[in-house]
Amino acid sequence: MLTDNLETILNDPEIDIGIELVGGTTVARDIVRKLLESGKDVVTANKALLAEHGTELFSLAHRLGRVIAFEASCCGGIPIINTIRDGLAANRILAIYGIVNGTCNFILTQMTDEGRTYAQALKDAQSKGYAEADPTLDVNGSDSAHKLALLAGLSFKTSVSLKDIFVEGIEAVSLSDIRYGGELGYVLKLLAVGIREKDGISLRVHPAFVWKDDLLAQVKGSFNAVSIYGHSIGHILLYGRGAGRMPTASAVVADIADVASGNARSRQKAIAPLAEKNPALQLLSTEALHSRYYVRLKALDKPGTMAKICTVFGNHQISLASVLQHEGEPGATHLPIVVMTARACEGNMQKALVEMAQLNVVSGKPVCIRVLEEHPEELAS
Amino acid sequence: MLTDNLETILNDPEIDIGIELVGGTTVARDIVRKLLESGKDVVTANKALLAEHGTELFSLAHRLGRVIAFEASCCGGIPIINTIRDGLAANRILAIYGIVNGTCNFILTQMTDEGRTYAQALKDAQSKGYAEADPTLDVNGSDSAHKLALLAGLSFKTSVSLKDIFVEGIEAVSLSDIRYGGELGYVLKLLAVGIREKDGISLRVHPAFVWKDDLLAQVKGSFNAVSIYGHSIGHILLYGRGAGRMPTASAVVADIADVASGNARSRQKAIAPLAEKNPALQLLSTEALHSRYYVRLKALDKPGTMAKICTVFGNHQISLASVLQHEGEPGATHLPIVVMTARACEGNMQKALVEMAQLNVVSGKPVCIRVLEEHPEELAS
Repeated sequence: MLTDNLETILNDPEIDIGIELVGGTTVARDIVRKLLESGKDVVTANKALLAEHGTELFSLAHRLGRVIAFEASCCGGIPIINTIRDGLAANRILAIYGIVNGTCNFILTQMTDEGRTYAQALKDAQSKGYAEADPTLDVNGSDSAHKLALLAGLSFKTSVSLKDIFVEGIEAVSLSDIRYGGELGYVLKLLAVGIREKDGISLRVHPAFVWKDDLLAQVKGSFNAVSIYGHSIGHILLYGRGAGRMPTASAVVADIADVASGNARSRQKAIAPLAEKNPALQLLSTEALHSRYYVRLKALDKPGTMAKICTVFGNHQISLASVLQHEGEPGATHLPIVVMTARACEGNMQKALVEMAQLNVVSGKPVCIRVLEEHPEELAS
Repeated sequence: MLTDNLETILNDPEIDIGIELVGGTTVARDIVRKLLESGKDVVTANKALLAEHGTELFSLAHRLGRVIAFEASCCGGIPIINTIRDGLAANRILAIYGIVNGTCNFILTQMTDEGRTYAQALKDAQSKGYAEADPTLDVNGSDSAHKLALLAGLSFKTSVSLKDIFVEGIEAVSLSDIRYGGELGYVLKLLAVGIREKDGISLRVHPAFVWKDDLLAQVKGSFNAVSIYGHSIGHILLYGRGAGRMPTASAVVADIADVASGNARSRQKAIAPLAEKNPALQLLSTEALHSRYYVRLKALDKPGTMAKICTVFGNHQISLASVLQHEGEPGATHLPIVVMTARACEGNMQKALVEMAQLNVVSGKPVCIRVLEEHPEELAS
């Protein structure tokens, strides 16, 4: 039976599960609500819907004794929801680092491996069907933030609101930074990061330099990968296709099986009451984060320049780990200076960058990219 | 309550789940049988037991309406059983390539990255607690074969007997081969391989050269990883700690939750009848396999040697992809010749090797190592 009338489905008692694959957050929200209210379980691939209205929809489902299965909403076929929820059930999850947007990863891989500019790489992605005609939601990091909201909520057993997530996209990434970072041994990736710190959790999406031998640095093209650190499992990583018709179908069908077998429902019964007992987690502001930083400046080629720049870093308690400066082209008045800092406080770095931009020896706005430090494995003993 | 009396546990109706972590295949088999017969479900980390007596034990459990959960038996904390069974439920699994023994991977990594000999690396592994005092079952490939039997059984939905698996360990691996392979761009790994071919499945454990940019080549130290190719999900890889107290505990506790929630049982009810409908899969003999090969010979340093060697390859329909020969040391009568072949039939290669060893220009037995060709993603359309 083929129908474009939702009522026909809602009123058919033979239909136990509604699968929502229309996308968006308006009509889809209405459909999911109605499916639940008419006594059906829901399988959805709609990350935006759940990231924006998840709290409302999950609580509606819970009240009605229905379930919402959403494996396909994050990282396509990779069973990341299943893994966090069941496979890592015995873990206090400490950190999660994900390459969760295939479009951005394809663009960055083209830039890194093929030397394409951002504009060329974006065109490549569009011609291969990896990017929409309007790629905004992918390249500005929103899509990654949607996924992070779901993954972090599940990992840290808390409810995450999109506005809690600091988001920076890849639109401003330049080929020069990818090249300079490469000289220092780093590969640029757009990461979705959730970390449980001592006094709260930090959630952010931004481009980050990853050490070249790190597995995340090896994730190329449109593939996705998620690194998770748990207190008992240590480091675990899942890699696979984050989008595409068949990988998404793989996740949707796995969810249907999970709902049809009754497992999704019995799991909800067992887990939901526990989740309600969790205290809300404190969200850390970006300023409080600590990280290493890559900074690139266009600086005047004359004695004293480096001293002025270093003074600004020093004044804000930022130590330098390495400095890269190539010979300038003949006649050039400004030279690119690339600095890799030691671990520093984001708030201090932001202040240093503002001051740096005001120096008369610095031209334009300095570029600053966070550097991923590998999370230490803290296996409980 | 602490007891060393099994009867106390068997007779206690308050105990629903028995967790078998004693290891071995004799006492453990008895314990598992008795637990099932006394109406308890079983969680076990015992791969040897299930690889050898799985058919008997699973069928006993099924008859008695009990379940055996065994996530911890393969790859420690990595939820690989959960992923294959649930996450990839919608997939026809085409191939599986695993680094499933941390001891071997630690030894090979020490040899590759630190230039240690096999004997030195084995000692390193023992001193770090990664290898037993008697490391035989790890280094001869048996442990990997046990895990492959379980993973392949689950992936290909068939029952796999240990004797169906071709097994070659790492005891004979030499530092020179790791180095020559490295010059050609390959990294040596001990792989457990299961492939669904047109006319059956092939199952084997052996050292294999993996291309350096392949994710499996980046799996270092005692870590494990499993690459799976499914008809709808494409390529997916799981990486993590394959052994150790806490990672194993992570898997055991996840299994307890799965059994306690009733999900393990409802899954068994839904899936077991389907499995019985599967036709037995034909097992392919190793001779029928096709692969690329790395061959190292010690050959007499005189005109005509290479011609004789190449003739043997040619006579067995083996094309050469590349040949590596360094200048000999002054006064050396024999030189190492390293050949990388094109895809060839294993039966032909074995015959060629026997003939090669009989050539008067070749000294000793040629070394032959299979080369992993990346499995093509065959996404259904």
